Amino acid sequence: MTDLAFTKGHGTENDFVLLPDLHGVMELGPEDVRLLAERRAGIGADGVIRVVPTALASEPDVVAQSMVAAWFMDYRNADGSISQMCGNGVRVIAAYLRREGLEVGEEFAIATRSGVKQVRFEGDLVAVDMGPWAFPQEALAREAGHDALVHIDGHEPFSAVSVDLGNPHTVAALPPAIDVATLDLTRAPLVNPAPSAGTNVEFVRPLGPGHIAMRVFERGVGETRSCGTGACAAALATSLWASGDVEPGQPWRVDVPGGQLRVTPLAGGRVELAGPAVLVADGTITLTELRDAGR
Amino acid sequence: MTDLAFTKGHGTENDFVLLPDLHGVMELGPEDVRLLAERRAGIGADGVIRVVPTALASEPDVVAQSMVAAWFMDYRNADGSISQMCGNGVRVIAAYLRREGLEVGEEFAIATRSGVKQVRFEGDLVAVDMGPWAFPQEALAREAGHDALVHIDGHEPFSAVSVDLGNPHTVAALPPAIDVATLDLTRAPLVNPAPSAGTNVEFVRPLGPGHIAMRVFERGVGETRSCGTGACAAALATSLWASGDVEPGQPWRVDVPGGQLRVTPLAGGRVELAGPAVLVADGTITLTELRDAGR
Repeated sequence: MTDLAFTKGHGTENDFVLLPDLHGVMELGPEDVRLLAERRAGIGADGVIRVVPTALASEPDVVAQSMVAAWFMDYRNADGSISQMCGNGVRVIAAYLRREGLEVGEEFAIATRSGVKQVRFEGDLVAVDMGPWAFPQEALAREAGHDALVHIDGHEPFSAVSVDLGNPHTVAALPPAIDVATLDLTRAPLVNPAPSAGTNVEFVRPLGPGHIAMRVFERGVGETRSCGTGACAAALATSLWASGDVEPGQPWRVDVPGGQLRVTPLAGGRVELAGPAVLVADGTITLTELRDAGR
Repeated sequence: MTDLAFTKGHGTENDFVLLPDLHGVMELGPEDVRLLAERRAGIGADGVIRVVPTALASEPDVVAQSMVAAWFMDYRNADGSISQMCGNGVRVIAAYLRREGLEVGEEFAIATRSGVKQVRFEGDLVAVDMGPWAFPQEALAREAGHDALVHIDGHEPFSAVSVDLGNPHTVAALPPAIDVATLDLTRAPLVNPAPSAGTNVEFVRPLGPGHIAMRVFERGVGETRSCGTGACAAALATSLWASGDVEPGQPWRVDVPGGQLRVTPLAGGRVELAGPAVLVADGTITLTELRDAGR
């Protein structure tokens, strides 16, 4: 592999290396992804996004989206594994496609492994329709005999709500006396009952009408600066607590350690995530040299 | 500030953003450095190095070095503060100057805030004369009434040796039963007696003749993947334990979490550090956009 062009970007400090592969010819193995994502020996990122024409993707389920979405977000986790979708990542690839002139409208669709995502530009914000959500609470609670509880060291258990956004979330409500910034999230919170495949855990504190602070512990990762689906889950759960229901069209401001997001429940049981997308730097990297580099 | 060219490089996973300022016109404030060094919202690095002609530096002590060193390593810490010197950084700037054709010899000098540093290329390695070292042990022990001890949770105190390399180091010897990889260095070790300005702490385990494993807790930073002066201190202290003396010309291999370094005591009470220097990626960044980016 010769010189590879890349762009580094982030959405509320969830950061990505974008690799344009405009002719669908790039061979990008798990080891390449790990090298690129390494913070010190590589460029450093939470994930790597290959930008490729949807029609040239290798998965038939993705190619089928090419009628409505010209570009595919081939998302890889920092450990080299393949991922379905990333709410902050889809905003950053949207900003990239627009800056490069690969998409020219204020609204367009992007293909992902979890289906087509509709994005929309709104000043400095990029909004994305994250699709359907659900409260699987009842089924889980019926099995366990009680509502979800989240345990972390040094605190009484927090009551919590399970939210499904394609991936599993458990949102814990903090009492007003506890500042979300003071929680020790160096170790994984204990959740009971939890979906069998584990769960992301959000800790939420209301700050005012339609305004919450949130921290997140991502399944298999640890605490992160931001999580797009987590912010949606947090707003939906808080809405449920505040009014017993989720009102479409009512926006929530969600403060995460990496910045601010806006979550708006949509009609039809869907939810929209909006926030900044910043393209930080552009460059070239020689992967073969990186592979051979003395360590 | 418009587009800024940068190169990202590392030496044993101590990583840097290099900024060529070939005409000495760059205004680089502490906030700019912090933004560039931020892992997620910026490029990400342990330090930022401005590459500037020595004659165009702002400090008279640096300009005075221009007779022997054409280029100055203007080193800044990730927090924006100014730094004197960095043993891994000087190897990476040396590799950069050579790749760019700004220096063409196998050996040349680089100006730093702690004086001229002589570098030498040796295959894939870059060697740098780190200057004089000393064992200030006796004075410290006389004051305290005993030799240095290093305490970390869950272990008996380790006996230790103080080494001065322009910056202070305390090197603790691990008993053969303890694997250096198993130590918990999430909290700062307690050192007694310690230099009043604090100290970097190295934990060393001999692996064979002239071969040690080391981990380092850097003063004010925490555990890092590598520390050039720390590796020198560790080899010098081990040499003292092994033979009661430091023998010039006898090389030590020092395994750090980020790779391998070679430390060679030189005649005249000086020490040489050698190791890899990798230039990972080249690019451009727009600092003004970064400053304005929504967060």
